[in-house]
Amino acid sequence: MAQASERRGSIQASIITIGDELLIGQVVDTNSAWMATALNKAGIWLRKRVSVGDDKAEIVSALDEECKNASIILITGGLGPTADDITKPVLCEYFGGRLVIDEGALANVKAIFARLNRPMIERNFKQAEVPDVCTVIQNKRGTAPGMWFEKDGKIFVSMPGVPHEMKGMMMEYVLPHLQRFFTLPFIDHRTLLTAGIGESFIAEQIQSWENALPAHIKLAYLPNYGMVRLRITGHGTDRLRLREELDVQFDALKALVKQWMVIGEDITLQQAIGNMLIQKGATLATAESCTGGYLAHLLTSIPGSSAWYKGSIISYANEIKEKLLQVSSHTLSTAGAVSEETVQQMLKGALTQLNTNYAIATSGIMGPDGGSPDKPVGTVWVAAGNENNIVTEKFSFRYDRKRNIEMTANFALNMLRKIIAEDPGR
Amino acid sequence: MAQASERRGSIQASIITIGDELLIGQVVDTNSAWMATALNKAGIWLRKRVSVGDDKAEIVSALDEECKNASIILITGGLGPTADDITKPVLCEYFGGRLVIDEGALANVKAIFARLNRPMIERNFKQAEVPDVCTVIQNKRGTAPGMWFEKDGKIFVSMPGVPHEMKGMMMEYVLPHLQRFFTLPFIDHRTLLTAGIGESFIAEQIQSWENALPAHIKLAYLPNYGMVRLRITGHGTDRLRLREELDVQFDALKALVKQWMVIGEDITLQQAIGNMLIQKGATLATAESCTGGYLAHLLTSIPGSSAWYKGSIISYANEIKEKLLQVSSHTLSTAGAVSEETVQQMLKGALTQLNTNYAIATSGIMGPDGGSPDKPVGTVWVAAGNENNIVTEKFSFRYDRKRNIEMTANFALNMLRKIIAEDPGR
Repeated sequence: MAQASERRGSIQASIITIGDELLIGQVVDTNSAWMATALNKAGIWLRKRVSVGDDKAEIVSALDEECKNASIILITGGLGPTADDITKPVLCEYFGGRLVIDEGALANVKAIFARLNRPMIERNFKQAEVPDVCTVIQNKRGTAPGMWFEKDGKIFVSMPGVPHEMKGMMMEYVLPHLQRFFTLPFIDHRTLLTAGIGESFIAEQIQSWENALPAHIKLAYLPNYGMVRLRITGHGTDRLRLREELDVQFDALKALVKQWMVIGEDITLQQAIGNMLIQKGATLATAESCTGGYLAHLLTSIPGSSAWYKGSIISYANEIKEKLLQVSSHTLSTAGAVSEETVQQMLKGALTQLNTNYAIATSGIMGPDGGSPDKPVGTVWVAAGNENNIVTEKFSFRYDRKRNIEMTANFALNMLRKIIAEDPGR
Repeated sequence: MAQASERRGSIQASIITIGDELLIGQVVDTNSAWMATALNKAGIWLRKRVSVGDDKAEIVSALDEECKNASIILITGGLGPTADDITKPVLCEYFGGRLVIDEGALANVKAIFARLNRPMIERNFKQAEVPDVCTVIQNKRGTAPGMWFEKDGKIFVSMPGVPHEMKGMMMEYVLPHLQRFFTLPFIDHRTLLTAGIGESFIAEQIQSWENALPAHIKLAYLPNYGMVRLRITGHGTDRLRLREELDVQFDALKALVKQWMVIGEDITLQQAIGNMLIQKGATLATAESCTGGYLAHLLTSIPGSSAWYKGSIISYANEIKEKLLQVSSHTLSTAGAVSEETVQQMLKGALTQLNTNYAIATSGIMGPDGGSPDKPVGTVWVAAGNENNIVTEKFSFRYDRKRNIEMTANFALNMLRKIIAEDPGR
């Protein structure tokens, strides 16, 4: 267990997220993933993530358990003003304090209510109460203050569960203070993306390289949407030396998977496409039927995407395919909306109507209903290209609606990426 | 702690998700939320969710810890064919077995490779190995079989981390077998959505009702996107009696929050809109600038939405606003793209071009760049309505790009919901 002992050498953290909503599935816990990334970049090893309900016994048991092995315990959730939120009184009792009004927190709550023009009631004043045994972390984005406790050389931090409030506190207060409190090792990553090859086949190709990795450098396979991301993670005290070691190992890995590598850094397909379009001074449009705006959403989630993405015509109804994308009614009535001809015409319509260099078009049956023996659920046609070069491909996905949409979007993006990369023009 | 003892009366489960990717934040754990919902519906109380890395000591420690308090331990992840996946050998050793080839799993792996037309290598054969002390759960969607272990009256189930493979096993095998193994209590929920009122103010309004709730019925506040969902959860052995009790309490709650309640059941705003449009036989289009397809994505994520949603014109570039939505160039150059006039014209353009009864239009500055003193990042104009009634509203959000987009979409949907609900026509 070389890896485990490596990890044990570093400062370790646990995350405890609190809230019944996490235990009945009403909310997906995105906070933990964000905090994990932030800790990792700061050189802190996250050893465990735990979610418990709004239940005193469970919260206390998680605190007892996690501080056995971790030096940093980050807690989110359960700080709201209502009766089901019990994190603050439980922590107050756990650390042997009593609740007192914090003047900074009170001024903040009052300012927020004044801005919203809402009356303050007694339980809003309670939001400004904190245990007298903690350092208060002021909340610039909401009413619940954060709390920093120290006990036996360990740090416990309680933050609100609202994502942007937690993120603000982490960036502005918690991470800088943790950096100062502990002497942190350095953790670094290198990531690449492959397509068209399975996880086990990659493993076979790179086996002897992987086996020869030193103990403080580790490889992970992260398959998603039919592609596999490979990530090497190194761990050490000499920042510069680690960086050089990782570069050498990463170059060796890239050479081994060269023919399947589609991106050589830790960015998404849509980011890679955006970067290539900026370099070429080119523009993109989409014409979406089955992806229903998901492609446009992925592309416009990138800051600054308006520089190269002009828009989309989402033609969920055939009438719109005809009217706005000039798909011929003959094609729709003979080949059908889910056909190679239709996506070709949709693509041409997008290039013309939205006046761009490149376009993507999608049409398919995402399920659960709408399939036929000829075109079962999961049948998808994608076209990608420019006015000189249109590539089409048919896919047969066998997932649920959500994943069929996601798979279509990712395969379509990869088709376009290849076309742009190989385009001699511009 | 009446609630805690209530919970302790029921069959309890823990979820252990395994994978370094969960600890460095590369992947958001959506599996846990899905499993939590499924367990909850089956009358099993999920008491804790734990995520650990691909590390033997951590996995064993989590197994030891969780089986102290839970009767069911559901495990996902770490079953891939590569060296970083160690869940199977660790479980094999933990339960004192040895790995043997399972003929059913082997046939499945072979069939998958034949279908993909990929060569099988040694580590693919290893995918068919299972501990001889488990019951094998065949995987109809991938190569890694699931494993069911029984020890001291407790159930341990190991499943792949790929979401649709895990979901298939849960629905087809794990949940039915758990139902048979344990005598399960009945858990039921009632949910409503409020808008335009804060969590603490609701709490004040319903305080005496909440305090009088019996111990086996519990209220939770779930704020999101500036709205608050209220959920009551009941717990008991008499299914019919519990249902009646919940109905009575829910009616009382609905009466108390009547003026802020926008939906009286556990569905999303977009589902509520879809239901109303079906009832009216009416159709919807969107014209999106700043939401960039996210509105269309939310609407088309609903199965069957093609019956009432016709499509969107995503006009990320002003040129597209003019050309496809007939926004006047004068408006764009004087009032600007982010203005009341522009979204009004976009909305009219969408109604005409996409030929629908209702439409939504959005335009704003989502950040991080693009703001000005006049129109800072987070400035958003939304229009919603039909040809006779267009409502506009300006918002000033102060979040990151992702959340600004989500907030805009949710507020826009709620504006439309209100218009449709109050529309005397049709």
